[in-house]
Amino acid sequence: MDVCMRCGTPRKGLELLCKRCGGPFKKVVDFPYDKQVRKNFPYIKRWVTLGELNTPVVSHGNLYFKLDSLNPTGSYKDRGAVTLISFLAEKGINEISEDSSGNAGASIAAYGAAAGMRVKIYVPERSAGIKVEQIEAYGAKVIKVKGTRNDVADAAMKDGAFYASHVLNPEFRDGIRTLSYEIASLRDVKNVFIPISAGTLLLGVYEGFMHLLNSGIVSEVPKLIGVQTKQVSPVCSKLKGINYTPPTQVTSIADALVSTSPVLLEEMVQVLRNYGDCVIVDEDEIKRAWEELAKMGILAEYSSAVSYAGYKKVIPEEKSVIHISGNGLKNLFPA
Amino acid sequence: MDVCMRCGTPRKGLELLCKRCGGPFKKVVDFPYDKQVRKNFPYIKRWVTLGELNTPVVSHGNLYFKLDSLNPTGSYKDRGAVTLISFLAEKGINEISEDSSGNAGASIAAYGAAAGMRVKIYVPERSAGIKVEQIEAYGAKVIKVKGTRNDVADAAMKDGAFYASHVLNPEFRDGIRTLSYEIASLRDVKNVFIPISAGTLLLGVYEGFMHLLNSGIVSEVPKLIGVQTKQVSPVCSKLKGINYTPPTQVTSIADALVSTSPVLLEEMVQVLRNYGDCVIVDEDEIKRAWEELAKMGILAEYSSAVSYAGYKKVIPEEKSVIHISGNGLKNLFPA
Repeated sequence: MDVCMRCGTPRKGLELLCKRCGGPFKKVVDFPYDKQVRKNFPYIKRWVTLGELNTPVVSHGNLYFKLDSLNPTGSYKDRGAVTLISFLAEKGINEISEDSSGNAGASIAAYGAAAGMRVKIYVPERSAGIKVEQIEAYGAKVIKVKGTRNDVADAAMKDGAFYASHVLNPEFRDGIRTLSYEIASLRDVKNVFIPISAGTLLLGVYEGFMHLLNSGIVSEVPKLIGVQTKQVSPVCSKLKGINYTPPTQVTSIADALVSTSPVLLEEMVQVLRNYGDCVIVDEDEIKRAWEELAKMGILAEYSSAVSYAGYKKVIPEEKSVIHISGNGLKNLFPA
Repeated sequence: MDVCMRCGTPRKGLELLCKRCGGPFKKVVDFPYDKQVRKNFPYIKRWVTLGELNTPVVSHGNLYFKLDSLNPTGSYKDRGAVTLISFLAEKGINEISEDSSGNAGASIAAYGAAAGMRVKIYVPERSAGIKVEQIEAYGAKVIKVKGTRNDVADAAMKDGAFYASHVLNPEFRDGIRTLSYEIASLRDVKNVFIPISAGTLLLGVYEGFMHLLNSGIVSEVPKLIGVQTKQVSPVCSKLKGINYTPPTQVTSIADALVSTSPVLLEEMVQVLRNYGDCVIVDEDEIKRAWEELAKMGILAEYSSAVSYAGYKKVIPEEKSVIHISGNGLKNLFPA
C-alpha cells in the first residue's frame, strides 16, 4: 500500500501527488525484513536487472567507503531505477518520460531500455557532458527544454508518456532501502555520511533503517549525516535556522546536487532532526576531498566527494560509512 | 615459483625476461584450488584492495554477460593490478613505471596510489581522452613519449623505477585467474568469448581454468573464443593461416585492442589451437554489437563490444559467457 507522506491518504492508482493535500506518496513497509533482499519488495515479481546492488566496500581505519559508484550505470540511482522500472514494466507501461540531465536520467534510460520501454529524457537546454551522452547511448531520446529547472519538469510531466520521475514515484525512493540493508551488514557503523539534494537518498536510507529497526534486525539507527554544498543547502539551512537564498545559477563542481528548493524539504529536515545532522561544505573542501579519495584509488564524482568532505569536518570517533554515490569517470573531460 | 613460459628456466628475482632465452615468465600454480579466492595467490599476504572481483552477471537467454566493466577502475585489469601491486608492495617497492594510455595504466595508477607508491605512466605523445584523465586523477605522473609504441615501452622500462608492466610481470596475468573462478561458478558454460590483444586476458583465463581442471573442480575447460578486430588480428591470422600485415596506425573504434605484434603471440595461438577458436570482426560489426548492448542497458567499451560482435558471428547453441572487459563511460565524449 502507498500513502501520502503528509496526510496519510491512500494512493489509489499510479497518481504521483495526493489528491487531497498535494503531498508525495511513500510505500508502506509493514512486513518483516527478509534476508532474501528481493522479498522486501513484494510489489515486484519480475526484476529487470542489470547487475545492481551489493556494491563493494573499501575499509580505511574506522571508515567504510561504500562504492555505489560501481552500480551498473555508475550511481546509487540504479537501486531506485531497478524497483521503479520493474514495477512499471509489470503494470504494462512501455513508454516513459523523466527529467534529469544526470545520474537519474542515465539510470532510468538504462533500465527503461532493458525493459524494452521507449524512454524520453527531458534536460535543461544547456545540458552537456558525459551524463547526457550516456543517456543517449542507452537509446533514450533526449529533449532539451528552455527555461527554468521547473519548466523542464513540467515538459516531462506533460509529455503524455508515463512520468517516471525519480523524485515523485515512491517505488524509486523505496528501492534505496537496499542500501541500508547493505550498510547494516557492516560492523559497528555509528554514522552514515551521504550527500543530499532532492531527498531520494536520505529518505530511502531512512526507510531502510526503520524497516530493519521495526523488524528487530538492528537495535538502533546510525546517525544519518546529510552533507550539502554551500550553494545548495536548503536542508542544512532549515535544520540549523540559517537564512538561505538559493543562487540564480548553481555553479558548484558538485553538479549533481542542484535541488535548491526540494519538494521533500520538510521530510528531510524531520529525519535529520530526529536521527542525524547536517554539514555544509565549500568548493575547496569538496576539491580536497575528491583529490584525497582519488589518491586512495577511489574515483568519485565531485558530488559524491561531498560526503567525504562533510566527514572531514566532523571526524567522529566511531565507525562511519562514507557513501560514494556516483562514478568519477562521469566528471572527467578529455583534454 | 615462476618459470619461463618458453624454456622453463626458473625466475630468480624480479627480472621480467628469462636470462636464458628472453621469454616471459609465468607463475607455477601447483597447489589445489581453494574456495577462499585469496588463498589461490600464496605470494600475497596483504591485499591492496579497491573492491575488485565478484563482478555482476546479467543473463539473457543462454548468454551470460560478465560485467568486468564494473570493477573499481572500470576494467578487468583490476584483477591483475590488485595482485601485481599487492605483491610489489610486499617487496617494498614504492616507485613504479608502466606504459599504457588505457585501462592498464588507469588500473596500475589506482592500485599504485592505494599502495602509497609513486606512479609514472608513459603514454604515446598523442594520447588523450578520458583514460588519460583518469590516470592523472589518481595522482600518477603522465609522461608523453614521441615515436612508436615500442619507444613508449622503452622509456617506461628505462625510467629507473620498477617497471610494473602489465604484460611482462607474471603476477598481473596471474590475477586474471579469478575471472575463471567466477565464470566456473555459473551453470553449464560451454563457450567464453573474450577480446584479445596483448594476451593478459586470454592466458590468464586459460591458467585459471587449468587450475580448476587440475584441482578436479571442473571436468572440462569451456571453449575459449578470442575475438580480434580486422585491423589488429595477428593471433587469429596466425591461427587460421591468414596473411596479416599490421596497419601503420590503428584507427579502430576498439581503441584498447592495439597489440599488432604481441610478445605472447605464440602462447595465445597455442591455447586457442588446443582449447578454443578465434573470430575476426569489422568496424560495423563492433558498432552494431555496442549499440545492441547499450539497448540492453549494458554500456561497454567498444573494445569490449568486440566479444559480443564475435559471438554474433558464431551463435553457438550452448550457454556462452560474453566478457565485458571495460566500462563504456570511458568511450563517451561530451558534445
